[in-house]
Amino acid sequence: MATAKFIYDTAERCPDLYYACKFSAPDPFIFIETRGKKYLVMSDLEIDRTKKQAKGCKVLSLSKFTAKAAKKSKTPSLLDTLNEIFKSLKVKKLEMPPASPFSLVDGLRKRGYKIQSGSTPFYPKRLQKTADEKKALIRAQKAVFDMMALAEKTLRACKIRNNKLYYKGKVLTCEALREMIHFELMRRNFIAPESTIVACGADTIDPHNFGKGPLRPHQAIIVDIFPKSIDSLFWGDATRTFCVGKAPERLKKLYNAVKAGQEYALKNIKAGVNGRKIHETILKMFKERGFNTGEIGGRMQGFFHSTGHGIGLELHESPIRVGPVDQTLKAGMCTSVEPGLYYKGLGGVRIEDIVIVTKTGCQVLAGYPKRLEV
Amino acid sequence: MATAKFIYDTAERCPDLYYACKFSAPDPFIFIETRGKKYLVMSDLEIDRTKKQAKGCKVLSLSKFTAKAAKKSKTPSLLDTLNEIFKSLKVKKLEMPPASPFSLVDGLRKRGYKIQSGSTPFYPKRLQKTADEKKALIRAQKAVFDMMALAEKTLRACKIRNNKLYYKGKVLTCEALREMIHFELMRRNFIAPESTIVACGADTIDPHNFGKGPLRPHQAIIVDIFPKSIDSLFWGDATRTFCVGKAPERLKKLYNAVKAGQEYALKNIKAGVNGRKIHETILKMFKERGFNTGEIGGRMQGFFHSTGHGIGLELHESPIRVGPVDQTLKAGMCTSVEPGLYYKGLGGVRIEDIVIVTKTGCQVLAGYPKRLEV
Repeated sequence: MATAKFIYDTAERCPDLYYACKFSAPDPFIFIETRGKKYLVMSDLEIDRTKKQAKGCKVLSLSKFTAKAAKKSKTPSLLDTLNEIFKSLKVKKLEMPPASPFSLVDGLRKRGYKIQSGSTPFYPKRLQKTADEKKALIRAQKAVFDMMALAEKTLRACKIRNNKLYYKGKVLTCEALREMIHFELMRRNFIAPESTIVACGADTIDPHNFGKGPLRPHQAIIVDIFPKSIDSLFWGDATRTFCVGKAPERLKKLYNAVKAGQEYALKNIKAGVNGRKIHETILKMFKERGFNTGEIGGRMQGFFHSTGHGIGLELHESPIRVGPVDQTLKAGMCTSVEPGLYYKGLGGVRIEDIVIVTKTGCQVLAGYPKRLEV
Repeated sequence: MATAKFIYDTAERCPDLYYACKFSAPDPFIFIETRGKKYLVMSDLEIDRTKKQAKGCKVLSLSKFTAKAAKKSKTPSLLDTLNEIFKSLKVKKLEMPPASPFSLVDGLRKRGYKIQSGSTPFYPKRLQKTADEKKALIRAQKAVFDMMALAEKTLRACKIRNNKLYYKGKVLTCEALREMIHFELMRRNFIAPESTIVACGADTIDPHNFGKGPLRPHQAIIVDIFPKSIDSLFWGDATRTFCVGKAPERLKKLYNAVKAGQEYALKNIKAGVNGRKIHETILKMFKERGFNTGEIGGRMQGFFHSTGHGIGLELHESPIRVGPVDQTLKAGMCTSVEPGLYYKGLGGVRIEDIVIVTKTGCQVLAGYPKRLEV
């Protein structure tokens, strides 16, 4: 008997589910692929919309199977209903995404189903982007860089007074600049579910600090924008580091080191290369310039995150592409390239683009100038 | 040996994780509760922020355990590292959320760990809201109703011409009204990750159709707003149905039926009551008024969703509170109360509030008038 692929999840939590059926709903739903056919089993609430929107799937009614199960049990459980569905599709062996709920798997195994774990991602083809997927990524990345241009233009238009930035006569804060970016993203049908990083000075040394309070001159300002397109569900992601007014010499050196590291990666990423080699070379390049990595004074300093993560229908697509673990890059893969350096008292610098790996190198999606002082 | 609670997930995917440690990060992290103590095991990237933000947890360094595991295996897996963590905390028996990844559970079982499934939610206390949690829900719901007032005010200010609504001289569309709501939500630090429903006429018969195109007079307009507070991570949720200009008699009857159903629920929800009874009574009330439920002309029509879902740190908190399954309501639980009726050719009506169950009844959070014609 053939092994069926089985997913029970929300499309938001499981991008493989969206990839397989091109349908999204707020609550979990049932997807089965067996003998070359795809099935969606939907509640009454979603069934009509599913029939209109889902691609390449036969849509079955969940309530009909629940009614069947109710003939055997007064209050049929999800397992009882699944049992009816699998019986009708003649399925006994299942392959499920490794992140599937273990209580569901335990329950199915008790009923005699053989369950094996699929790969991550469940559809590995998803990692090597098609021409259409690349277009969606470029559209997302173009929107991101339009926002970056908006941020840079706003910073450039600021006047420096009392160690603060004034934009159109008012103190410019991280929150205000972030709001400008979010408003404009929304207008273009993008959302930034985890916010956008606009951080300044001491806040920049923590790569996931979103930033707050007044923006200041002569300090690092990190702008990291990573929204999702509501139309395509693909993500964009880019970071630039700015400094309004003259930058201190030490910050310039930090910036130039990060820029050199990023350029090294952009020149050397290509199909067949091990991401770990690139990551380790950047660490070495930083060290040669005097920028060490490790716990210094009780906190992590230097370059303590990976160079690049996969990106597509997920913001962080496993596995990490360019980092401290072996990963052979393949043509069509999409990865961020975002080395960074962070030191207490000096600040943080990160420069990020996303690229598609090719046989001969890599292609930067969209693109935007890299300059520290604005 | 004591059983430890163990979660490996993101706080976004697992609200119980956020509930337990009050910390959120984009990538999965490790939480262990054993012998009355809570531990977080964090990557170098997050460890400093965790120490500052997490509540009531001892924060351990993931890379230190990975280094230990690396002494035994050249490329230590997550399982190798977890093994080191559990050994150091003297843990062999684990209770994990039922939705935990089965590949991880299979791997731990192979290494001799005893794993049992916890309840849903993992911390059942989370369902019965504390005074502070109730305050956060009220704040969220107040924001939702401010948006509802904005929507109603905008609709009321429209002029009817050529079967369209004109606001400040321009055709008012679902998209434009939704954008006004989203902009104002953002200003208040709320996000609507799954959009806001502003649907009109034929689109209203599908409860999850977000709506598009021009808004029209003399038809049902459903506005369903369900954002999350970025500050508290609690959700708000409310729906009103409007009609600009005179409503057709049939739509008025539909509206009055739904309103009567909702009022019945609000009067009868209290601790000790079975949600199923309330849901079934509303179905009966609708039927008595001539509004039947079932598949009519190949699609579901009538009242084909539940009356109410739990809400809190999740928009839909399991289990369904007031619906077709037995659920005894308890004091402190929070549920939506949102009957609806949907008919092809006539349109849809839904009215939704959220309430906290009390010993003697229920308290509507915030609140807003119910009127069809604006």
